[in-house]
Amino acid sequence: MSGPEWESLEQCLEKHLPPAELQEVKRILYGKETRKLDLPSRAFEFASEGDFELQGYAFEAAEEQLRGPRTVRVGLVQNRIPLPADAPVAKQVSALHSRIETITEVAAMCGVNIICFQEAWTMPFAFCTREKLPWTEFAESAEDGPTTRFCQKSTYYMEGDLGHPVFQTQFGRIAVNICYGRHHPLNWLMYSVNGAEIIFNPSATIGTLSESMWPVEARNAAIANHCFTCAINRVGKEYFPNEFTSGDGKKAHHDFGYFYGSSYVAAPDSSRTPGLPRNRDGLLVAELNLNLCRQVNDVWNFKMTGRYDMYARELAEAVKPNYSRNIVKE
Amino acid sequence: MSGPEWESLEQCLEKHLPPAELQEVKRILYGKETRKLDLPSRAFEFASEGDFELQGYAFEAAEEQLRGPRTVRVGLVQNRIPLPADAPVAKQVSALHSRIETITEVAAMCGVNIICFQEAWTMPFAFCTREKLPWTEFAESAEDGPTTRFCQKSTYYMEGDLGHPVFQTQFGRIAVNICYGRHHPLNWLMYSVNGAEIIFNPSATIGTLSESMWPVEARNAAIANHCFTCAINRVGKEYFPNEFTSGDGKKAHHDFGYFYGSSYVAAPDSSRTPGLPRNRDGLLVAELNLNLCRQVNDVWNFKMTGRYDMYARELAEAVKPNYSRNIVKE
Repeated sequence: MSGPEWESLEQCLEKHLPPAELQEVKRILYGKETRKLDLPSRAFEFASEGDFELQGYAFEAAEEQLRGPRTVRVGLVQNRIPLPADAPVAKQVSALHSRIETITEVAAMCGVNIICFQEAWTMPFAFCTREKLPWTEFAESAEDGPTTRFCQKSTYYMEGDLGHPVFQTQFGRIAVNICYGRHHPLNWLMYSVNGAEIIFNPSATIGTLSESMWPVEARNAAIANHCFTCAINRVGKEYFPNEFTSGDGKKAHHDFGYFYGSSYVAAPDSSRTPGLPRNRDGLLVAELNLNLCRQVNDVWNFKMTGRYDMYARELAEAVKPNYSRNIVKE
Repeated sequence: MSGPEWESLEQCLEKHLPPAELQEVKRILYGKETRKLDLPSRAFEFASEGDFELQGYAFEAAEEQLRGPRTVRVGLVQNRIPLPADAPVAKQVSALHSRIETITEVAAMCGVNIICFQEAWTMPFAFCTREKLPWTEFAESAEDGPTTRFCQKSTYYMEGDLGHPVFQTQFGRIAVNICYGRHHPLNWLMYSVNGAEIIFNPSATIGTLSESMWPVEARNAAIANHCFTCAINRVGKEYFPNEFTSGDGKKAHHDFGYFYGSSYVAAPDSSRTPGLPRNRDGLLVAELNLNLCRQVNDVWNFKMTGRYDMYARELAEAVKPNYSRNIVKE
């Protein structure tokens, strides 16, 4: 079962475990409990009418004398494609904009400062087909395309750059580690070295491929780098008109597999929110007190104890074609 | 509850979840199910007499045409200190040797090729007291001390070195990432770059400090580096004669906290074994087919897609005192 039959780990545990046991299980799986956010009832009504899940949690930090709390609200959006992948391109884009607009309005009601959509949110995840048309028609100008113009109504947007850039915003320093980049611990590290306090990871990944990695990678990155990480995945199955193969020895098929949602936010103190459902569109609102980053850094000191000069030397050696591995033989 | 009241996550889930739900929860938390190893009944009898937990699992790999399975059995040992920390030093060492001998005999019955004990297994974990005597008396020569001589009877041992050395043994290439080293993703990476197929992480860590990090870090390392990792923790509470403080603003105390065991093995395909209990000595036997490392590498290609030359350059820059962080401002 890597499909939609099963809503979520959290729902299952809450249904079956007695309260005291549930608390222990959550402590081990999710760390210090996140406080439920008191979101406006109107937001829940809109979410219910719009048929998507709305959840809100807050990560707290200790009070400091010289800095007030630096709270920021982030919104993570996961969604299905509202129209099938063989509908006309313009209609698909317009339906996606409309769907995201509904969810973004609720995010605004919830006081969200920074919103992050899923990877390739303006199109079906057509890369798996390895076809060009019509998918290339979903491409737009990042400077003045319709999606950029749409986003400029309500949300934050900034173009990319080379290396591991971090964006200084009025709400904190943020970075974006796209999809597959989450598998490389050094990507997260370099964003953190450049000062990121929140790293977003918009992804598109399916159950049979990665579901048991999903709770581990962004979480480990938050722990290892004393920062917040936001992991966002798509929802649902997307059917493509032409069949394609996936290089796994299996027969050609019309879908890539089931995108299992489960978007979540992880904190530097190894706590995390529950995940959004596996089988439903959703908005996860998380209030982060960014002071927690330095507070955890002061306790664990991974940045101070990391021997980055040694790693830099060792890596520089290791990439040379004639590198001789440090192997001790009997 | 970060103490011994609670045996394990696995026991709780197995007690309360219906079979079909349990299977889904395990799939998400532990990945592809590990097969239970058929260990000799005599081994279970000895473990029961010796009052320690014995569990065995096998990680399997696909059959290959040119290589046979390369299976190796590893043994992870977690244990309390058998005598209180204020007993005479020689008696403590001798009781520990005797306890470990019992467990090691069972490991031998189970066909274990490589055994790994917990960090600082020949003494109480006295570092937290910051005292010298009598703890320095537990130090021994690594070349011909009683512990080395004891280990030479049955087990594999090789002295340390500088950098991130990997040891080529007849059972595969192994490395040891000691305790706190698990928090640095780059340590695991460098062992892996040097060819490690199994990385052991002997640790000593307590519930209030790290229990929600424990299932994440070694697991992420196995995924990110296409190798097996073995995470080993102590068990129990250790009382020291003189009170000491822990720099956390709390009153002086006689113990460091509760060591929660929960030792486990993680595989490159993101699967893992259940953990040993939180509150009981234990031996975890895991049969690893090392062919899985290259097989997973061939699917995910993190080594090929890692831009190590870029990281090496970026890190070399980042450690310079005048480093200017890559921050894009509005």
